[in-house]
Amino acid sequence: MANGKNGKNGKKPGNGSDKSRVSRSDYQARVEQLQVELNQLARWLQHTGKRLLVLIEGRDTAGKGGVISAITDALAPRWCRAVALSKPSERETTQWYFQRYVTHLPAAGEIVLFDRSWYNRAGVEAVMGYCTPEQTASFLRQVPVFEQLLVDDGLLLFKYWLCVDQALQEERFAERLSDPLKRWKLSPVDLQARARYQAYGEARDRMLQATHTPHAPWTLVDFNDQRRGRLTLIRHLLDQLPDTALPEPQMEFPMLPGKPRRERFAGPLRPIRSVA
Amino acid sequence: MANGKNGKNGKKPGNGSDKSRVSRSDYQARVEQLQVELNQLARWLQHTGKRLLVLIEGRDTAGKGGVISAITDALAPRWCRAVALSKPSERETTQWYFQRYVTHLPAAGEIVLFDRSWYNRAGVEAVMGYCTPEQTASFLRQVPVFEQLLVDDGLLLFKYWLCVDQALQEERFAERLSDPLKRWKLSPVDLQARARYQAYGEARDRMLQATHTPHAPWTLVDFNDQRRGRLTLIRHLLDQLPDTALPEPQMEFPMLPGKPRRERFAGPLRPIRSVA
Amino acid sequence: MANGKNGKNGKKPGNGSDKSRVSRSDYQARVEQLQVELNQLARWLQHTGKRLLVLIEGRDTAGKGGVISAITDALAPRWCRAVALSKPSERETTQWYFQRYVTHLPAAGEIVLFDRSWYNRAGVEAVMGYCTPEQTASFLRQVPVFEQLLVDDGLLLFKYWLCVDQALQEERFAERLSDPLKRWKLSPVDLQARARYQAYGEARDRMLQATHTPHAPWTLVDFNDQRRGRLTLIRHLLDQLPDTALPEPQMEFPMLPGKPRRERFAGPLRPIRSVA
Amino acid sequence: MANGKNGKNGKKPGNGSDKSRVSRSDYQARVEQLQVELNQLARWLQHTGKRLLVLIEGRDTAGKGGVISAITDALAPRWCRAVALSKPSERETTQWYFQRYVTHLPAAGEIVLFDRSWYNRAGVEAVMGYCTPEQTASFLRQVPVFEQLLVDDGLLLFKYWLCVDQALQEERFAERLSDPLKRWKLSPVDLQARARYQAYGEARDRMLQATHTPHAPWTLVDFNDQRRGRLTLIRHLLDQLPDTALPEPQMEFPMLPGKPRRERFAGPLRPIRSVA
Repeated sequence: MANGKNGKNGKKPGNGSDKSRVSRSDYQARVEQLQVELNQLARWLQHTGKRLLVLIEGRDTAGKGGVISAITDALAPRWCRAVALSKPSERETTQWYFQRYVTHLPAAGEIVLFDRSWYNRAGVEAVMGYCTPEQTASFLRQVPVFEQLLVDDGLLLFKYWLCVDQALQEERFAERLSDPLKRWKLSPVDLQARARYQAYGEARDRMLQATHTPHAPWTLVDFNDQRRGRLTLIRHLLDQLPDTALPEPQMEFPMLPGKPRRERFAGPLRPIRSVA
Repeated sequence: MANGKNGKNGKKPGNGSDKSRVSRSDYQARVEQLQVELNQLARWLQHTGKRLLVLIEGRDTAGKGGVISAITDALAPRWCRAVALSKPSERETTQWYFQRYVTHLPAAGEIVLFDRSWYNRAGVEAVMGYCTPEQTASFLRQVPVFEQLLVDDGLLLFKYWLCVDQALQEERFAERLSDPLKRWKLSPVDLQARARYQAYGEARDRMLQATHTPHAPWTLVDFNDQRRGRLTLIRHLLDQLPDTALPEPQMEFPMLPGKPRRERFAGPLRPIRSVA
Repeated sequence: MANGKNGKNGKKPGNGSDKSRVSRSDYQARVEQLQVELNQLARWLQHTGKRLLVLIEGRDTAGKGGVISAITDALAPRWCRAVALSKPSERETTQWYFQRYVTHLPAAGEIVLFDRSWYNRAGVEAVMGYCTPEQTASFLRQVPVFEQLLVDDGLLLFKYWLCVDQALQEERFAERLSDPLKRWKLSPVDLQARARYQAYGEARDRMLQATHTPHAPWTLVDFNDQRRGRLTLIRHLLDQLPDTALPEPQMEFPMLPGKPRRERFAGPLRPIRSVA
Repeated sequence: MANGKNGKNGKKPGNGSDKSRVSRSDYQARVEQLQVELNQLARWLQHTGKRLLVLIEGRDTAGKGGVISAITDALAPRWCRAVALSKPSERETTQWYFQRYVTHLPAAGEIVLFDRSWYNRAGVEAVMGYCTPEQTASFLRQVPVFEQLLVDDGLLLFKYWLCVDQALQEERFAERLSDPLKRWKLSPVDLQARARYQAYGEARDRMLQATHTPHAPWTLVDFNDQRRGRLTLIRHLLDQLPDTALPEPQMEFPMLPGKPRRERFAGPLRPIRSVA
C-alpha cells in the first residue's frame, strides 16, 4: 500500500486536462478488463471470508456514482452493494455519529461501497453549517480510532477522494441543469455549494490532515476526465489486493432434450402489441 | 386500462422475431424520451402523494433487470427503488407468505419495482418443488384478495410478464456462460430450469388464470427483442397513468463570483498517477 | 369458539362490581396455575409450528398492559413477545395502514400480543380526529378481509376488548396522577379522552359491528376488577386452544464435582458495600 | 465516580450471606423510593438530551433480569428499554463483533439496559468455546478503545457485574428445575456451565483486568441476596448521576361533566362470564 508515497510523487492537480480524454470505446474495452479482475477479487473475498469496504468521497459532480456503478454493474448484488445514506432522522442525529454507518459494514465475502460516508461530517455538514465546529473537531479525533478498530478487526478499508477542478464542476452542473434526465441530480444545496468551492477545499485539507493515517490512508484520484478517473481508481484498488485467481465453479450446460419451445399461452391473454 | 382487450387482439407470441431488432442508437434515443416522461410521472406522484408498485415477472433471461434499470437510471433514488428479495430465512418461511414483501410497499410519492415478487410461489417455487402444491394453491387463492386490499387502499399496481421464446433464452444462457462479466448471473438453479421450460409455462398459465383480475390485470410483453420489450413496457406503463405535466422546480444558477478554481491541496498528499 | 353465543348469554356490563374483588393472594395462586398451562400451550405451538396472535384492545386504564405482563412473565422471550407500536412516522402514515403491523406478525411457534393494534384507526384515531372518517370507514371495510387472509393462512387470531366502567376509569386516572410511579402512564391525550367516554363507546360499537366476524370474533371481558379480568381472559384463551400436554425436555442435573465455590476475584476489584 | 476506590475498600465477596435477607415488604418500600428517583433521572436525561447505557453482566441466575425489570417497570417504555440479543445469525458472526450491539445504543434522552452485552465474548463464548482464544484476546484489546469512543461522544456508560456464590447459584438452578414457571429459564448450556463455575471466574478476572478502565470502570455488586443486590445497584447508579429534580409536567384533571357512565354495548355482544 504505497499510496502515500506514490501520492507525493504523483501528478500535480489539474494535470488531467493535459491528457486527451479517454474515448468511450477505449474506456469500454478497458473497464471490462478491470471488471473481469473485480470478479476475480470477489471470488477471492468469498473464498477467504474477507470483507472489503471502499469509501468514495469527493465534491459534487466529481463522479462518485459513476465509478460505483462501474464496479457494482459487474458483480452479483449478493456480493457487492452500494450504500448511500439519506439525511439522518431527528432521532438519529442524537445518536453516536457512526451508529447508522456501522449497520452497513460488510459481512464475510462482501464488498460495500459507500457513496459518501461518515466523512460527511468533515465536508458538507461542516461547510454548510449542519453541525457545530465542535462536532466536526470531535469527529476528526474519533475517526482514526474508529477506523483502527475496523482495520484491526481485519476489514479491508480503502478511502478515495475524487478530484475535480471547478471549471469541470461548472460544466457538469450546467449539464445537469439543462438535461431533463439529469436534473434530479441537482438539489438547491448543490447550487449553494458552487460558491463555496474554496471552503470545501479547505475543509477537505483539514480532513486529510487529520485522517490520512498509516492504517487507513487516503488515495486522491483525478476525476477531471471521469472515464480515466474510473479506470485509475479501479486499477489502484485491484493493485492493493492479491490477484489470486480462483477457478470459477464449472456449470453443466447439457443439450436441450428437444427443439426449443416458443412462449405459448393456454388462456386468452396475449402479449400486447410491441412498439413499432 | 384496456390491457385485457388489447392483449386478446394483440400480436401472437414469438412474432417479435419477425420484426427487425431495434438498434442500439435507435433504442437510446427512444428510451431517453420515455425517461423524460418517467420524470414527469415521478413529479406527479410526489405532487399527489400517490404510490406506484410495478411487479416485473418472467422467465430467467427474459430481461427483468434490464427494464428495471432503464427506469431507475432515470430517476432519483429517493423517488424510485428496485426490490429484489433474496431467499427467505428459515424463520421467514414460516411467516405469512406476503409478510416480507409488505415491508417494501411504497410510501407516498414513491415508485417501487419488484424484480420478481410474491408470484415466486406460483413460479420457481412451484416448479422446483420449494413449496408444496397446497401452498401454491393457497397462494393463488390469497393473491386476488391481497391485491384487492392494496388497490382499494389507492395503490397503483401494475403486473408485467416478460415473454421470451426458448431459443432466445438458450442464446442468452450461452452468452452468460461464456462472458466472464455475465457469469455471476447464472446459478445452478437457472440451468436446472432450462429443461423445465414447458413446466414453467404451465405454471405461468395457472397463475395468469387465477390472478388476472379486473382490479389487478396482467400485461404480457414480448421480450424476444429486449430493447423493443423495454420500450413497449415503459410506453404501456406511462399510458396507464395521467400525463399531467407539472412544472419543474426552478433553480437559480448565478454566475460564479470569480475565476473557476483548481483542486489544490494544502498538505503533501497529491492525486495518484492516472492510467495512461 | 362459541364466543359470540356465550357473549349474548353472558353477564351484563358492569356486573363485575357486584362480585367481591379477587384478593391478591387468591389471584397469585390462580394466575400461576394458568401460567403453567400457558407454558404447555407454548410448547404445543413450538411442536406444531403454529402461530398465535392476540390483540388486546380496550379503553385507557382498562388493564391491557397488566394482562399482557401476566402472560409474558411466564414465558420465555424467545417464544412470546408483546408489541406496542408507537406513533407512526410521517412516512409510515402514507403507507398501507396494515404495513407496519404486518412486520410484527408471529413466525412458527411464536406468540405475539398486540398492546393496541390496527384497531387504533377505529378507536383513538377516529375519536380524536387523527384520521378522516373516510379513512376509518375504509379501514372497517378492509379489516375483515385482511383478517380472513391471516386466518386462512393458519394464523390463530384472538381479539379481546377489555371493558371498564367510567367510575373505575376515573379512579385509575386519579391514582396515576397521584402516584409518582404511575404518572408516566398518563398523557395529555388520555386526559382529553376522559370527557369522551361516550364517543369512545360509540366508536367501539361501530367497530364491533363491522369486525365481529365468524373467522375473527371479538371477545369482551369485564375488567372492572382487573385481577378477575386477567384470570377470565387467560382462561378463555386457553379454552380456545387444545390442551395437548407435551412432555417437557428432561434436563440432567448431576451432582457438582466438589464443594460449591464462592465468587472470588484475582484482581483488586471487590463488590461495593451493599445497602444496609 | 469513586467506584474503583470504593470497590477496593468494599465488602469481601460472599459477605452478603452474613446479613439477614431483605424482606419482601422492606424491599418493596425501598425499591419504590428508588423508582421515584429513577423517574427523576429519566426526566433529567430527556431535558438534557443525554444518553445512558447500562451493561448488566454476571453469572447465570445472578439476577440480571430481575434488576433490569425493577428499573424498566418504573419507567415509560419510550424512555427506557432492555436489550437482550439472541444468538447471532451466521452472517452476523462474520461481521465486526460490535456491529449488532451498536444498532441498539441509546438516542437522546434514552436509557438502554443491556442484559448481557458485548462482554459475552469474554465470558460464555470464551468458556464454552464458541469463539477462538484469538477472538477473545482481540476483543479484550478492542473494548477499551471502543468504550472510549462512546464515552468521548458523551454517552453515560455503566458496567455492573453481579456476584453470586455457587451455593446460591445451585439453589436457584434447582428452583428453576422444579418450578414449572421457571423452567424455561434453564437451557442445556446453563447446566453445562454449572461445572465450569471456576473457569467462568477466571474468564471474568481476565475481563476485569483488561477492561476496568478509568473511562469505563466496572462495578461489582453482591447478588447473593437478590433484593439487596437490586437496591444496591440502583442506589449506586443513581449516585453516579446528578439528582437534579425537574418539575413534572402539570396535567389538568377537571371534573367530569356528568355522572360516570357504564360500559354499555349497542350491539348483541356482551362480556363473557367472568371466572368465579
